[in-house]
Amino acid sequence: MSDLAALFAAAPVARLGTGKPVFHCGDRVRDVIFVQSGAVALRRVLSEGATLTLQIAEGGALLAEASLFAERYHCDAVVRTDAELRRIRKGAFLAALAGHPDTLMALFAASATEVRAQRARVEILRMKRLSDRLDAWLALQGPPGPGGWAEVADAIGVTPAALYRERAKRRRMGGTPK
Amino acid sequence: MSDLAALFAAAPVARLGTGKPVFHCGDRVRDVIFVQSGAVALRRVLSEGATLTLQIAEGGALLAEASLFAERYHCDAVVRTDAELRRIRKGAFLAALAGHPDTLMALFAASATEVRAQRARVEILRMKRLSDRLDAWLALQGPPGPGGWAEVADAIGVTPAALYRERAKRRRMGGTPK
Repeated sequence: MSDLAALFAAAPVARLGTGKPVFHCGDRVRDVIFVQSGAVALRRVLSEGATLTLQIAEGGALLAEASLFAERYHCDAVVRTDAELRRIRKGAFLAALAGHPDTLMALFAASATEVRAQRARVEILRMKRLSDRLDAWLALQGPPGPGGWAEVADAIGVTPAALYRERAKRRRMGGTPK
Repeated sequence: MSDLAALFAAAPVARLGTGKPVFHCGDRVRDVIFVQSGAVALRRVLSEGATLTLQIAEGGALLAEASLFAERYHCDAVVRTDAELRRIRKGAFLAALAGHPDTLMALFAASATEVRAQRARVEILRMKRLSDRLDAWLALQGPPGPGGWAEVADAIGVTPAALYRERAKRRRMGGTPK
């Protein structure tokens, strides 16, 4: 059991099926939720009606740890893959954490890494041209992961069709097979 | 003296004038740098040649704390206002921090807040229409701070002129004086 999981060992397990809500945007942040298994997505509904996935919390991680110090959630949490969750009160968690500096350090490290990742996304989204966004993304992340090019399109804020056209153009121009 | 400042009390003070570089993009992250007074900007030069300010670290803060767990810096640091800096080795800092859980908790809290702020920026920049970006920004941040509308334009990735036109349009349409 990880050090983080150990802090939740005494809490009961709640089982939630795919698609079930865990919390809603605007709810007060009372508890800290640990994802023991499965996956939970943090989402926001954009003004155009589309849904933006902010983060996927998988087994072994806290859910919405960025909200630990906030009054209310700024997003919805929805089970993405049948999940087992444990929750404890935020105050009790923070008090316990102060006695586990290694766990606290690991959370800080993960958060610092996330800050860098999000700042890189901001930089990319500020670029006007799709080709600049793609270059920047490839320079930072390397070739696409298991999510493939659809995930890249989502990350750089362009449509899959527009990204496909750009890649086709690059192949025609005899560039590297990006 | 803050708990954080105390960790740097034994380190010598370096004084750097406005415009001086502190580190460069690609440099190895060896030290942790504490800004005792003045201000240091983290910047990246974009592909179009423009400069993007990622963060301003002012007196009492760490510089580039998001890079603490990274191998190399992803940005440049430049003194923005005459600064006094103290630096210690990263390893020594992290070891000392483990013995100061309150300070570590404060750093984690600041980092978590920054994650939320950056995610909000990502959301806004993904919106296509300037009016949607402005609405989202105002809903999240309220009226502009001391940086005024120029800072808002920068944050939501539009030109000051385009933002001015949008605001003029809203005034003409008799909306709230945004």
